[in-house]
Amino acid sequence: MLTLFHFPFCPHSRFVRLALEEFILPARLVEERVWERREEFLVLNPAGTVPVLVVEGHPPVPGAAIIVEFLEDTLGRERGAGRFMPPDPVHRAEVRRVMSWFNDKFFAEVSEPLAAERIFKRHTDPGRSPDTEVIRAARHNVPYHLAYMDWLLQSRDWLAGDRLSYADLAAAAHISVADYLGHVSWKEDAPVKAWYGRIKSRPSFRPLLEERVSGIPPAPTYADLDF
Amino acid sequence: MLTLFHFPFCPHSRFVRLALEEFILPARLVEERVWERREEFLVLNPAGTVPVLVVEGHPPVPGAAIIVEFLEDTLGRERGAGRFMPPDPVHRAEVRRVMSWFNDKFFAEVSEPLAAERIFKRHTDPGRSPDTEVIRAARHNVPYHLAYMDWLLQSRDWLAGDRLSYADLAAAAHISVADYLGHVSWKEDAPVKAWYGRIKSRPSFRPLLEERVSGIPPAPTYADLDF
Repeated sequence: MLTLFHFPFCPHSRFVRLALEEFILPARLVEERVWERREEFLVLNPAGTVPVLVVEGHPPVPGAAIIVEFLEDTLGRERGAGRFMPPDPVHRAEVRRVMSWFNDKFFAEVSEPLAAERIFKRHTDPGRSPDTEVIRAARHNVPYHLAYMDWLLQSRDWLAGDRLSYADLAAAAHISVADYLGHVSWKEDAPVKAWYGRIKSRPSFRPLLEERVSGIPPAPTYADLDF
Repeated sequence: MLTLFHFPFCPHSRFVRLALEEFILPARLVEERVWERREEFLVLNPAGTVPVLVVEGHPPVPGAAIIVEFLEDTLGRERGAGRFMPPDPVHRAEVRRVMSWFNDKFFAEVSEPLAAERIFKRHTDPGRSPDTEVIRAARHNVPYHLAYMDWLLQSRDWLAGDRLSYADLAAAAHISVADYLGHVSWKEDAPVKAWYGRIKSRPSFRPLLEERVSGIPPAPTYADLDF
């Protein structure tokens, strides 16, 4: 039995939810309000962050990148060609590089400030309105990231090579948060738009497309597979 | 032939330097002033950060955690019991958890602000003095991390288990920067002090202990193995 401690619209949690869906690993989702610093949760993850994966009979595994490495270490080989971390060390380094681009860099520059100001602040800092300057700066960074993705996708089918990998799932998870909030301008004919369309159409993505933030309707094309 | 693009006292670079020394992999060290955003360097790592490991004939590998995973993927098995990433998936997750504690959390809360304000600012923002408020906040976080390490070391020989792992090398690299600057108060009889003494005494650590920042002498016990 798997349990995933997560928070809706936390991009790291979304990445792991995608990975679990792709592996067809049903997990019980438990919403954790990390800002409450619940004692039982801090025992699971002293860093106090989501996501945390709990596999019955094992110590908890915290952090999106660590969880997907754990899935690779335990289930990767079985999946053969369909695994999300290739067997070759050079390809693995590239998957990890692009994955970290989104988990760390895109998160810091785009998905964290947008989600924090527009979605999480209502819980963490009720009564204070979103900081428009922070939102403006994060929005400003989006086209640079899309241009980098276009550049990668000019020579590859997927972000880290010729196969779908954890890099694509991470990227799509982080972008989905900005897209829900209407901060992604999709350019017709851009490789990154075609890439996002392919990812969005996967059954694993459906639960994310159905999710809603109360009081903030999604951008019109958020759940549209033909956007 | 290996080349490591690094910067002195960058804690992530120090972690990789320790790992390369432990593997007895001689690497040419190239000092990269990342704030100059040198074009040839951005081709190696579009994220513009150090460290970057270049193995002749292979694409560059950027980022400390990614570099050590690459070393594990290429050389880990050969090292047998002496490898820094254990073979078991549950142990690997624990090594990665503690490694990320230092590479991400300790970095954000302690080693990055201290190194940025006291060492790097002279290059990145010449003429501006260190922000004493930032330094104070970072110093304030040190004892909490040491207490967590003491707690881990009460039931283990090393930070992530019974063997020296990448978690220890990462932790020691980040702590060494704070220690150089005199911001670590070592308590006699604390498990973490004994742990740091063991790591510091390894030949791999010697190059770090010999390094100096011009104009900032190290704390009196920085290079002292019997501190």
